[in-house]
Amino acid sequence: MAGTGVFCEIIDGEVYKYYSEGEWRKSSSGKSVSIVNPTTRKTEYRVQACTQEEVNEVMEAAKVAQKAWARTPLWKRAELLHRAAAILKEHKGPIAECLVKEIAKPAKDAISEVVRSGDLVSYTAEEGVRILGEGKFLVSDSFPGNDRNKYCLASKIPLGVVLAIPPFNYPVNLAVSKIGPALIAGNALVLKPPTQGAVAALHMVHCFHLAGFPKGLINCITGKGSEIGDFLTMHPGVNCISFTGGDTGIAISKKAGMIPLQMELGGKDACIVLEDADLDLAAANIVKGGFSYSGQRCTAVKVVLVIKSVADALVEKVKDKVEKLTVGPPEKDCDITPVVTESSANFIEGLVIDAKEKGATFCQEYRREGNLIWPLLLDHVRPDMRIAWEEPFGPVLPVLRINSVEEGIHHCNASNFGLQGSVFTRDINKAILISDAMETGTVQINSAPARGPDHFPFQGLKDSGIGSQGITNSINMMTKIKSTVINLPTSSYTMG
Amino acid sequence: MAGTGVFCEIIDGEVYKYYSEGEWRKSSSGKSVSIVNPTTRKTEYRVQACTQEEVNEVMEAAKVAQKAWARTPLWKRAELLHRAAAILKEHKGPIAECLVKEIAKPAKDAISEVVRSGDLVSYTAEEGVRILGEGKFLVSDSFPGNDRNKYCLASKIPLGVVLAIPPFNYPVNLAVSKIGPALIAGNALVLKPPTQGAVAALHMVHCFHLAGFPKGLINCITGKGSEIGDFLTMHPGVNCISFTGGDTGIAISKKAGMIPLQMELGGKDACIVLEDADLDLAAANIVKGGFSYSGQRCTAVKVVLVIKSVADALVEKVKDKVEKLTVGPPEKDCDITPVVTESSANFIEGLVIDAKEKGATFCQEYRREGNLIWPLLLDHVRPDMRIAWEEPFGPVLPVLRINSVEEGIHHCNASNFGLQGSVFTRDINKAILISDAMETGTVQINSAPARGPDHFPFQGLKDSGIGSQGITNSINMMTKIKSTVINLPTSSYTMG
Amino acid sequence: MAGTGVFCEIIDGEVYKYYSEGEWRKSSSGKSVSIVNPTTRKTEYRVQACTQEEVNEVMEAAKVAQKAWARTPLWKRAELLHRAAAILKEHKGPIAECLVKEIAKPAKDAISEVVRSGDLVSYTAEEGVRILGEGKFLVSDSFPGNDRNKYCLASKIPLGVVLAIPPFNYPVNLAVSKIGPALIAGNALVLKPPTQGAVAALHMVHCFHLAGFPKGLINCITGKGSEIGDFLTMHPGVNCISFTGGDTGIAISKKAGMIPLQMELGGKDACIVLEDADLDLAAANIVKGGFSYSGQRCTAVKVVLVIKSVADALVEKVKDKVEKLTVGPPEKDCDITPVVTESSANFIEGLVIDAKEKGATFCQEYRREGNLIWPLLLDHVRPDMRIAWEEPFGPVLPVLRINSVEEGIHHCNASNFGLQGSVFTRDINKAILISDAMETGTVQINSAPARGPDHFPFQGLKDSGIGSQGITNSINMMTKIKSTVINLPTSSYTMG
Amino acid sequence: MAGTGVFCEIIDGEVYKYYSEGEWRKSSSGKSVSIVNPTTRKTEYRVQACTQEEVNEVMEAAKVAQKAWARTPLWKRAELLHRAAAILKEHKGPIAECLVKEIAKPAKDAISEVVRSGDLVSYTAEEGVRILGEGKFLVSDSFPGNDRNKYCLASKIPLGVVLAIPPFNYPVNLAVSKIGPALIAGNALVLKPPTQGAVAALHMVHCFHLAGFPKGLINCITGKGSEIGDFLTMHPGVNCISFTGGDTGIAISKKAGMIPLQMELGGKDACIVLEDADLDLAAANIVKGGFSYSGQRCTAVKVVLVIKSVADALVEKVKDKVEKLTVGPPEKDCDITPVVTESSANFIEGLVIDAKEKGATFCQEYRREGNLIWPLLLDHVRPDMRIAWEEPFGPVLPVLRINSVEEGIHHCNASNFGLQGSVFTRDINKAILISDAMETGTVQINSAPARGPDHFPFQGLKDSGIGSQGITNSINMMTKIKSTVINLPTSSYTMG
Repeated sequence: MAGTGVFCEIIDGEVYKYYSEGEWRKSSSGKSVSIVNPTTRKTEYRVQACTQEEVNEVMEAAKVAQKAWARTPLWKRAELLHRAAAILKEHKGPIAECLVKEIAKPAKDAISEVVRSGDLVSYTAEEGVRILGEGKFLVSDSFPGNDRNKYCLASKIPLGVVLAIPPFNYPVNLAVSKIGPALIAGNALVLKPPTQGAVAALHMVHCFHLAGFPKGLINCITGKGSEIGDFLTMHPGVNCISFTGGDTGIAISKKAGMIPLQMELGGKDACIVLEDADLDLAAANIVKGGFSYSGQRCTAVKVVLVIKSVADALVEKVKDKVEKLTVGPPEKDCDITPVVTESSANFIEGLVIDAKEKGATFCQEYRREGNLIWPLLLDHVRPDMRIAWEEPFGPVLPVLRINSVEEGIHHCNASNFGLQGSVFTRDINKAILISDAMETGTVQINSAPARGPDHFPFQGLKDSGIGSQGITNSINMMTKIKSTVINLPTSSYTMG
Repeated sequence: MAGTGVFCEIIDGEVYKYYSEGEWRKSSSGKSVSIVNPTTRKTEYRVQACTQEEVNEVMEAAKVAQKAWARTPLWKRAELLHRAAAILKEHKGPIAECLVKEIAKPAKDAISEVVRSGDLVSYTAEEGVRILGEGKFLVSDSFPGNDRNKYCLASKIPLGVVLAIPPFNYPVNLAVSKIGPALIAGNALVLKPPTQGAVAALHMVHCFHLAGFPKGLINCITGKGSEIGDFLTMHPGVNCISFTGGDTGIAISKKAGMIPLQMELGGKDACIVLEDADLDLAAANIVKGGFSYSGQRCTAVKVVLVIKSVADALVEKVKDKVEKLTVGPPEKDCDITPVVTESSANFIEGLVIDAKEKGATFCQEYRREGNLIWPLLLDHVRPDMRIAWEEPFGPVLPVLRINSVEEGIHHCNASNFGLQGSVFTRDINKAILISDAMETGTVQINSAPARGPDHFPFQGLKDSGIGSQGITNSINMMTKIKSTVINLPTSSYTMG
Repeated sequence: MAGTGVFCEIIDGEVYKYYSEGEWRKSSSGKSVSIVNPTTRKTEYRVQACTQEEVNEVMEAAKVAQKAWARTPLWKRAELLHRAAAILKEHKGPIAECLVKEIAKPAKDAISEVVRSGDLVSYTAEEGVRILGEGKFLVSDSFPGNDRNKYCLASKIPLGVVLAIPPFNYPVNLAVSKIGPALIAGNALVLKPPTQGAVAALHMVHCFHLAGFPKGLINCITGKGSEIGDFLTMHPGVNCISFTGGDTGIAISKKAGMIPLQMELGGKDACIVLEDADLDLAAANIVKGGFSYSGQRCTAVKVVLVIKSVADALVEKVKDKVEKLTVGPPEKDCDITPVVTESSANFIEGLVIDAKEKGATFCQEYRREGNLIWPLLLDHVRPDMRIAWEEPFGPVLPVLRINSVEEGIHHCNASNFGLQGSVFTRDINKAILISDAMETGTVQINSAPARGPDHFPFQGLKDSGIGSQGITNSINMMTKIKSTVINLPTSSYTMG
Repeated sequence: MAGTGVFCEIIDGEVYKYYSEGEWRKSSSGKSVSIVNPTTRKTEYRVQACTQEEVNEVMEAAKVAQKAWARTPLWKRAELLHRAAAILKEHKGPIAECLVKEIAKPAKDAISEVVRSGDLVSYTAEEGVRILGEGKFLVSDSFPGNDRNKYCLASKIPLGVVLAIPPFNYPVNLAVSKIGPALIAGNALVLKPPTQGAVAALHMVHCFHLAGFPKGLINCITGKGSEIGDFLTMHPGVNCISFTGGDTGIAISKKAGMIPLQMELGGKDACIVLEDADLDLAAANIVKGGFSYSGQRCTAVKVVLVIKSVADALVEKVKDKVEKLTVGPPEKDCDITPVVTESSANFIEGLVIDAKEKGATFCQEYRREGNLIWPLLLDHVRPDMRIAWEEPFGPVLPVLRINSVEEGIHHCNASNFGLQGSVFTRDINKAILISDAMETGTVQINSAPARGPDHFPFQGLKDSGIGSQGITNSINMMTKIKSTVINLPTSSYTMG
């Protein structure tokens, strides 16, 4: 159970501690932040409301720990990460329990998130050993006019302290996808978990603690974004920010100093369905892509753009599948569970009502109880409705009927977002040409948008983000280049 | 005109000279080899019949020149290659003229071959500057148990003397695709051109001479394969063989010593046509792929495997196009010109007669005059006919009607060759799955097999060869690795 | 002569035009900015004071032009860049003339800058063809639990519109080092040249115009930084900023939105001289590194840290060489020429006076006439003097005598800058260990800091910048990743 | 104990079985080959003398198993290798015992060999996942004249059946350095262990068996080289040979067909010691490099080339250390143990006597008992002595005194071998220039030659081999390239 067994030291009475300088601590603020269970709508957990002073301490400790960590052999860094991965998987139960209670993630998915996170950490360790261990050896005589008398050794070195801010929907997986790359690359890490999901994150951090990482190298600060958010992101001790979330990311980008940023923000992933598509495949992917975890995924299908001639058939198939979705509490592994907060539910409702008023067809009756919204497919949505452009982050999915592929591509590219897109067609030429034309970070041919597998590049264009993720790209992003040039007194050529 | 103008120094009376130690020379053998024009069937040119002693001289000179060349800045090597490329293009006329007379290549194609060769040399120069100029900088602490006290600088260095043996069908282009990589990588080069095409090759070599390469770096030996072939390929001074041609390559592989081999031998490239294929596209590619340069191409379409239900339609379309092919002398830019030798024509005829006897349907009447064979499509070919498996290297193309994709893949994979294959289908899944299943070096989806563009990898599996070509791969193949390890007295980490 | 011949269309009366939508235009502002010749201290040239509206027009045009340019074959992009490079070299005379008059660059160095710029553009073209033309093909079964049913094609695509802001000291070379990478990668370009150097930049831009780039793809805006600076850097149409200059870069970083930044700001490059160093080599490099172009170089040697035991000997050698430096106008190719502005001269003087007051030893008498400051070596500088930490960007060089290597490394790492550093020692172990310990983007062993050769990575740490430059890294920086995933209905393995 | 516990099934009575089709089998020959313990000079073990028919069976089984293995997800291949690595380490005891008895390897070194082998297998698994999982995605418009209508997906695929022939001195480690790369790359494997070391190898193979690899994928054939050697290496079912050993490798190269070869043969690694070298460091490395495992290592220091002025001092230091070496049986962990066979001891003695007769100075008395030869340093060796050029593969080390660095480099480069070399100097310039000049696969600066760490490239030039090893290079070597080209009907550009 959460907060018990090996996890007993991370809680003090009713309030979870924060993690600083290798220790679990209570904040001097004496205050806590409460975490409301989306299902019960009652406070489930409490975490420390850390102070700015405590942020300063953490930053200072991280800076010191990083210098020593940067001098640790790569294989030792990897060994610790492998150990953390194993511990994480071993304790998947209590961590998944937090995910169920904090963010209403269906129980099985919660377990999967933890297991997949362990795999990710291990893969990251081995990837990083290779990225950090191999630099370039350049010679000067490539460039016109130069002799071969300068040997340049360029390698990748850590950035320093990485600030990781994951979102509520994958508070463990999207934390380790930042922590793993940061650590194997030789950085220290300060984690600011989302409020919903903070307790799962604290448990996960404890697994790293148990693995035996040096004091101060990994840290976890909790508290109200309004009090410490800007303080953290603008802190001079931060050398890199890796953020996943919503619009806040754009604001952070504008405030942050001259440091590398990795931002994965919202999306309005379109699913374009052509006349020659396998409609069963498309329908299955639309339902999985649109309603998994109640639509609370960056890469959820957020708008379906279907060619008119097959629209009826497609909608019918999707509707059939939507009606088979189970609705209820996450403990029962229902497909559709309460959305994360009441304000989120209200926002979703606003989009639904706007669509209704402007003439969208509801394939199901709209139904809501508390944070729980029944899955809803909206047909005949038009570009003048908000839901055609805005991200509901809930179990409601708009269908726009299009006259041509060009219209679909145009709708996709007119969005301010550019995370992923998908196209369903059997035709190899159309598949490639449409993928090339869609201005999103990734285009999935014949499958719903998806972040994984975790070693694939993952990036959002336009307002969807900056930088590329995926294990390899994240590690590279959390390094900088340093070069050493050996200047010889005379030209030299390697003979053999 | 060939052998005149800047080329006057490469000929002595009626006999073309060979190129050794930076000079055009007559062989001490006093003998020559005659080159018969495939169209007129009369001797068109004569080249030196070099002696083994002259081979030895060339090898010795190449070895010495290579050591100095390996100490030449990369940009200077590139500069000379760019110059050679420009001279080659400038003199495309006389070189193409040789191609017309020696190998009956249609005049326009002959010009294209020379121009494309110039582009290839320039591209190779720039590619090589990068491949040779960038090595790896590895550190020891990637591997378990090691401190970071060993810095390894690994780079690519030349092999030494490369023996290049191109085939008759592209005696210029397939020579420079070996010469360019060899030179930019810092090697010396000994060229043994094919008998048919030797004079074109000598002209091409003279363009490199005019560009000002150091004496002895590039050399060209002519003579009878039976006299100097084995002597060359087994010569201890040879550090690498790059060969394009037929079965001889397998024999060379067995005789050659412990040196890197690049072999591109024959092929029996299949073209699989599925029910859903664009039959017009398929037919156009089959005709272009099967009959260009009278089928005398490694990557010619050499067998069509078409699903029965569309076979009649496809054969009809191909037949229509075949009948539009012009037949006659290369000077008139005819599509179909005489094949390279009488023995080649006889071999082709043997395959045709065998197929006839075993029941193949001829879509056109079989017709031959001297070396000139009219284009012939053979339908209803069955696996018991020799033409289903052997390479005609002429303008005759067999069609096998198959009951299933699996049957097509099986026929393709049962071949001892594995150069390229192609599949025509609109379906993205079938296209990929069939490509993956075909055991050939390359599979073309919806196009005929083809070697280019020249920077793409190009390789034959099984009896079709060893190693991968294409500009990048050829340069890499003509290098070896050398590493320098700096051992430090203590562990050191690059800080920043 | 500047503004004549092919350049006559870039000037209108006395005022140089700006370049927008493929045309040379006068600003509707009716105003101009004057450029004072540092030597004569009189207005030499005038350029347009562009308006915000004109910036908007340029951004719009660039956006449109970029979309078409992104659809241009790589080899065509390269061909245009090669043409621009050739034109640039052809017109080196008038461009160099501007450099002499605008920034008092010695005449020979001015010519070199233009020629080297042409080489850089050509090299960039070929490098970009390779970077943009080669992506990654990833499969899903690398990651635990995945079948091989997802094929990911990841490639690099343009960012959009790149804003390039080069500094006064290399207004041509540091402009093309941004323009070349931006263009070959498929971006459009808006150039904001420095006031001093603007006219040289306009001439350079005209060479690109003459090469025939599409309208709107390259643009050049002139004007007062105070009026259009923030407007440009915060413009929503800008997708990337590449800036070289001073502290302004940090301010830009904070204001800029969520876009990639490449910043190369100041430096305080240290030169550490050990007891076992070749003092003649060190002295020669210190003088060249410290006084070339009157010390107005990012990578100038800006502080000498010499072990006490050899300090007298080193200072003596440096002093001897300093005294041989010629001082005077750039037209006469003097080593030391007037610094770029009076305010710069005043700033330098401030540092010198501070050092004098705090007890530094002057190896020469301090002398100034207008913007012309005689070269000055300051010995016995101590950490409490401003010149020990601040960047004079002038011909004055401080020497600190240190007791140990550690003291030298500590001084180097205590700086807020981290551009380059250098160490002089014969000892291989010390050379490597000290390089590793110096927290700068590059460390030169046995040579003065230097930006080139231009394909080497070049980067500043801490306040010296963000991102890495050098041709390869700049091209990569000006791209983003896009991936296409082909999802197969079943696992497939490539056989052969 | 060897042949007991989990290993009991690999032995039948007194004779160890061979491994074919996933089973331990007795040869139908009814014959066995005896393995003589070098220390006792008595038969210690017996292994099957396999027949050519059994080789055929193994080849056939391997071919079938490979096709299925090539269709196994990369992560599953890696998982099995990790399991094998763990089992190997777990059973280090009995395997090391075999090494002690078969090849007289000192007990501690024997344990190290097994443990290091486990690490190598794990590292190889992770490296291979990355090499096989990442191909290139190339587009056609890089090359002049091409549109962007061809998308090439190039990846690395298995070769088929790899024949691995390791040498006696590291029968486990040099076997897994071939097995690991072969398997992770998707190949099947036929191992032919050396006679001495065969039983250790069979135990090692059993660890792979226990890990659960598919039947037929790994196989181990034992027998007399004279009976099955050529049959194996010339077998048409073999698609790649990886051999480590002596001159036999050159003969194999000449007989083998058109398949990739990886050969690591002998060496005569020179150690050049300059005047400014750290003589203590040099002496320590010479003794370790020259006498470890009684000099029976490819990368042993095999000749010392020392500048005259420091020769006396160096020889004195080396002599002191040599005298401290313990001599005796491997069970007692003596430094010097019996050499592998009597014929080897006789060969070594021949070199020693030749040197004596030609005037070499013996720093110790020459002493031999059976296969046990006491360590011997031979000073004043001259180029006319056989030991200056030949490889003793025993505990005898020649010192040549040289007048100049050039003389040392000349001696090194005059050898027909080119494995590694080393140079001892403090001077960074000399270190690099001499490394560049030495024509060997690797040059160690300030350390003895060495194969590891295992991810570093490792290669011999000239008669020392072909191809490069080290984990990364070996995996690459055991793959070939296959490419799929998607041909589009029109040019397409990836937008974003």
